[in-house]
Amino acid sequence: MKLRPLAVRFLVALALGSSVRAEEGMWLYSAPPRAALKAAYGFEVTDAWLDHLMQSSVRFNSGGSGSFVSGDGLVITNHHVGADALQKMGTAEHNYLRDGFYARTDGDAIKCHDLELNVLQSIEDVTARVNAAIPAGATGDDAALARRKIIAGIEKESREKTGLRSDVVTLYQGGAYHLYRSKRYTDIRLVFAPEAQTAFFGGDPDNFEYPRYDLDICLFRVFENDRPVRPAHYLKWSAAGARDGELVFVSGHPGNTSRLLTTGELASLRDVSIPLTLETLKRREVLLASWSGRSAENARRAREDLFGVQNSRKVRDGALAALQDPAFMGAKLAAETAFKQKLAARPDYAAALAAFDRIDAATKIMAAHLLRHRLIEGASSRFTSTPAGFTSQSFALARALLRVADERPKSNGERLQEYADAKRESFELALFSDKPIYPDYEIITLADSLTLLVEKLGYTDPLVQRVLAGRSPRARAAELINATQVRDPAFRRKLYAGGAAAVATAQDPLIELARTIDPEARALRTIMEAQDEVKQQAQAALGAARFALEGTSGYPDATFTLRLSYGTVKGYEENGAPVSATTNLAGLYRRSAEQGDRPPFDLPPRWTEKKAALDLAVPMDFVSTNDIIGGNSGSPVVNGAAEFVGIIFDGNIQSLSADFGYTDLQSRAVSVHSAGIIEALRKVYEVPVLADELTTGRR
Amino acid sequence: MKLRPLAVRFLVALALGSSVRAEEGMWLYSAPPRAALKAAYGFEVTDAWLDHLMQSSVRFNSGGSGSFVSGDGLVITNHHVGADALQKMGTAEHNYLRDGFYARTDGDAIKCHDLELNVLQSIEDVTARVNAAIPAGATGDDAALARRKIIAGIEKESREKTGLRSDVVTLYQGGAYHLYRSKRYTDIRLVFAPEAQTAFFGGDPDNFEYPRYDLDICLFRVFENDRPVRPAHYLKWSAAGARDGELVFVSGHPGNTSRLLTTGELASLRDVSIPLTLETLKRREVLLASWSGRSAENARRAREDLFGVQNSRKVRDGALAALQDPAFMGAKLAAETAFKQKLAARPDYAAALAAFDRIDAATKIMAAHLLRHRLIEGASSRFTSTPAGFTSQSFALARALLRVADERPKSNGERLQEYADAKRESFELALFSDKPIYPDYEIITLADSLTLLVEKLGYTDPLVQRVLAGRSPRARAAELINATQVRDPAFRRKLYAGGAAAVATAQDPLIELARTIDPEARALRTIMEAQDEVKQQAQAALGAARFALEGTSGYPDATFTLRLSYGTVKGYEENGAPVSATTNLAGLYRRSAEQGDRPPFDLPPRWTEKKAALDLAVPMDFVSTNDIIGGNSGSPVVNGAAEFVGIIFDGNIQSLSADFGYTDLQSRAVSVHSAGIIEALRKVYEVPVLADELTTGRR
Repeated sequence: MKLRPLAVRFLVALALGSSVRAEEGMWLYSAPPRAALKAAYGFEVTDAWLDHLMQSSVRFNSGGSGSFVSGDGLVITNHHVGADALQKMGTAEHNYLRDGFYARTDGDAIKCHDLELNVLQSIEDVTARVNAAIPAGATGDDAALARRKIIAGIEKESREKTGLRSDVVTLYQGGAYHLYRSKRYTDIRLVFAPEAQTAFFGGDPDNFEYPRYDLDICLFRVFENDRPVRPAHYLKWSAAGARDGELVFVSGHPGNTSRLLTTGELASLRDVSIPLTLETLKRREVLLASWSGRSAENARRAREDLFGVQNSRKVRDGALAALQDPAFMGAKLAAETAFKQKLAARPDYAAALAAFDRIDAATKIMAAHLLRHRLIEGASSRFTSTPAGFTSQSFALARALLRVADERPKSNGERLQEYADAKRESFELALFSDKPIYPDYEIITLADSLTLLVEKLGYTDPLVQRVLAGRSPRARAAELINATQVRDPAFRRKLYAGGAAAVATAQDPLIELARTIDPEARALRTIMEAQDEVKQQAQAALGAARFALEGTSGYPDATFTLRLSYGTVKGYEENGAPVSATTNLAGLYRRSAEQGDRPPFDLPPRWTEKKAALDLAVPMDFVSTNDIIGGNSGSPVVNGAAEFVGIIFDGNIQSLSADFGYTDLQSRAVSVHSAGIIEALRKVYEVPVLADELTTGRR
Repeated sequence: MKLRPLAVRFLVALALGSSVRAEEGMWLYSAPPRAALKAAYGFEVTDAWLDHLMQSSVRFNSGGSGSFVSGDGLVITNHHVGADALQKMGTAEHNYLRDGFYARTDGDAIKCHDLELNVLQSIEDVTARVNAAIPAGATGDDAALARRKIIAGIEKESREKTGLRSDVVTLYQGGAYHLYRSKRYTDIRLVFAPEAQTAFFGGDPDNFEYPRYDLDICLFRVFENDRPVRPAHYLKWSAAGARDGELVFVSGHPGNTSRLLTTGELASLRDVSIPLTLETLKRREVLLASWSGRSAENARRAREDLFGVQNSRKVRDGALAALQDPAFMGAKLAAETAFKQKLAARPDYAAALAAFDRIDAATKIMAAHLLRHRLIEGASSRFTSTPAGFTSQSFALARALLRVADERPKSNGERLQEYADAKRESFELALFSDKPIYPDYEIITLADSLTLLVEKLGYTDPLVQRVLAGRSPRARAAELINATQVRDPAFRRKLYAGGAAAVATAQDPLIELARTIDPEARALRTIMEAQDEVKQQAQAALGAARFALEGTSGYPDATFTLRLSYGTVKGYEENGAPVSATTNLAGLYRRSAEQGDRPPFDLPPRWTEKKAALDLAVPMDFVSTNDIIGGNSGSPVVNGAAEFVGIIFDGNIQSLSADFGYTDLQSRAVSVHSAGIIEALRKVYEVPVLADELTTGRR
């Protein structure tokens, strides 16, 4: 897939609030499903096993998962997770993303521009402390601000005390707050990547399909003080790899699920949010594909963005299909109705019952502001995201410079959350990145975004008129991108150091544009955060009632925090025919031949040349029933002995509604098999040193 | 380009109602610009010259233009105009659209499924007769019905009297009505097509760009009584072809321009209509491109639709860019304001001044109903178009069967216009076409359309609920397409013969679905037609005032009727550098090489093999200042002696706002050069017999 961005899975009948089924669950490391595993598999989860797996797991700031697989700091992830780094280190001469790479020595390894890896060290429940800081009766704005303050305070205190990256994460839609402390690495160097042809064999057409034949891997080495780190924990490699029917675990960072949403919230996703997302994704896909067609260099520059857009589009198409399915929505509604009846029968749960109405009201307010918010403010908890009306890396940088200058003088707790002290190092890493930014590419993306802005808000909208300043969207985009200096890291450093005065003096046209829209952008964000606070309080009440009435311990919706999932390696049935759990190398050649070897089913020359040398019976990819979603890309799949047997890279098409619920009927997680990886490294890429390091854990 | 679907050109400052500039104009054959040509070029337009050009010109019912180029019935058009026929005659074994074709003998020529060609024979002004039939004071519904009745009556009378196809066309937005009589041909056979690679070299990326290197031609032979026709008129071939600076004429069928629209109407296009069109086009482009990627056969099945969608998308993107440009809209508004002031100064033109308000009011009503109308009724003057909520050939056929059974019993004048007697033969040709229809393709397009319907009207909309019948869009689409019998031509013949009773008895689920939505679809159409009538009356008043006050004779907006344009072969300047008027064969090889010979810049093997045999200095494509737009594709370009010197196939990117006005600063029409055609036919395709027929006019 590209489990990196979001969503996954088809469900037959998810019952909201019902007990967890079979192998469902993205479990917190602080509350693993010990009893269920013991009962179903006789498997004993020990603290040592758990801690070893946790500290071997790696989170990528570019959005994805990975794991340490050698005592000398080697980290394995997916090619499509590493792609962001590969794209940024590429040039017109060296297309690492397309052509692959291998560093024979540490000296050859290429340092990534702005990649940050985090390894979770501990989890602390701070729910009581957070809630105690909210004044009794506070709602909306006031409560949201109080919550932001206490969270920023806890994070800062922890950061100062432990030196670790400290994030307070929201779980159960506001039912719980946990403090996650992570070791942070920022000197990450590329060791090995296969060609994109091999890593993403079958391309967008085969994405989210099965059977698959992808070698979707990428290997980095983590350095500290210019020397490879010696991690305390790393996964041992299983040469045999995943076996059919075997119990396997996935340890990774699922990004986002919506399983506990009310039917009102789901309806809003279906009718408002997802259609708008899909419209902008498809529009962008056409723009990037069309521009890529003009030249090979255009294609190189847009490649990673285009892959990301196509992947998200497939995910959202699948999610929307589930939400537009009367059977699905009917089951959701039936479950919710049943739960409401239980609440109605108990006067002491009147507040919980009323929470549904509060959530509905907040949902409606948010839906009403959604369009303007997306266009002008965007999803901005990471500053690298941009409002849909101003898509370009330059605008993101311009706004970050403007805002950080305005925010930094405020007290830590009063800032927009991405400018909190605890996030400062990560912010600076991204802000000062010397990744390449191409003006021609920036112009076409910004021009298209401004066009969208005019379409959606209307040509006569006062904000639109101020933004265009008498020019057409295309002319305005060219003027802004050509004139701004934000692409220069030295300029960014200077303005960052100089604060608001330096920013104002610079008179950079793109920063001034960001200033023009900032009052409305911030106002929209305030509205959204206040309503989100209403929802969080209501969801907390619902969660407590659900726990009390139904006894479900369960797991919270995914939030990019580290989770453990278990499942079995298992095929399924499709259109009456069995789909076996594992594919092999022979299948790769067969699939390429049946597609006439045309892109994206063509093989790199080395794969054709080395075919005779390969044991074609070696497994390549496999499926399992693990409960995963976007963000799990690159997660290690381990056996009971915590040995690396494979690496998650996709879900099948039936898994595309996992956002809303789990089923193991046909929905499957898709992984690269550990045996296939070694066979390819030894015989196709002829990198025995690397294969030896993986299988022995040392070099 | 693909001037087939619509639109074209950038204008610097179009002045509404101002005098016609330089080489602007899509002139009626009944009112050619004799004086202007005489004054500027000393060129004398004689009746014989005009009649010869008119009767050599051919209109394609698939949307495009062409011309007779031999006394033995050979018609030349663009490959992308012939593409619809090539697509329909293709099979999994023979991909004529991609691979090209040559028929050495008449026996080898392949008959097209449902291609109809029309050759204009005469033009008669029937404005007075039409207007006299509208009861004094009638507006909206009543007037629209009365107008439809008189038009159907005139057409039928003419058809019966002359045996010719008879169409009353609306000109000047309702300012005039002309009766066009055409000779109709339906036995059309494919003689020659190059590979799509060559015809559409550079593909979507180079579409609407210049310099270009496309051999966008296709040759058909017209038969009657199983023998090639001997047309009374055909164009002599110019071996030398178009020369730089030469006066040239284009005779073809520009489809649609909006140059006389009010600024209120333009604003509605900008804010409502074009954004919706672009959204559905981009969505469809993603769907078709993604499905095409799954297999070569998918790609073949979707190819022609995908090309059409990409082309329309580029055209609309260009049109929207013009409308979102403050300079453009400012100029339009200034011109309109000046005209309004003239009207305001003359009390006798109070009615004309008030026409602006009437148009605005009608525009607002139409905009308010636009979304539902598009989704449920669609543009239905040709039955093969489908509402956007039900896109599939099957639905189009199902609705045609339903409606023709309901409409035929009514009097001729009371029917929906596409079921009028005068259109019966063309209707039957299309209805009984045995073109292939692929269920898998039908399912994905219908499923996506139903998804769009749910998104736009809302899941809870009563009509949506009736349409889905408890299923998801995908499941419902599969169920409908699998169960319907409309793909079977014998079934269609049976129902057509049996009328409403046979249709009702058949209980075909797709026809029943069409029945379900028909009341609302017809109601929406009635609203739109009534408002369109209001606009036509208002535009007629404006046109009369404009003529009286400003003396502009001018030309009406394009309406797919035959038009004459004149211009000169002429390069232009871009980013400070000159772009020369003509490209040559050497340029084709150079462009392919600089793109690494990757698709869509790769050359077919025969072009590589024959390179040494070619005179690389021979011209390939050229640009001229002719005023053209979508529908002009395939139009012959002739010199003063009415000799064929080239064939229109595109406009450059600067021409993409021609919909709203003309400029000759950079905007250019793009043609294939007659010398390049002959060089390719003789030396690359080695078809001397065909080349001889073209150059001598006989075989």
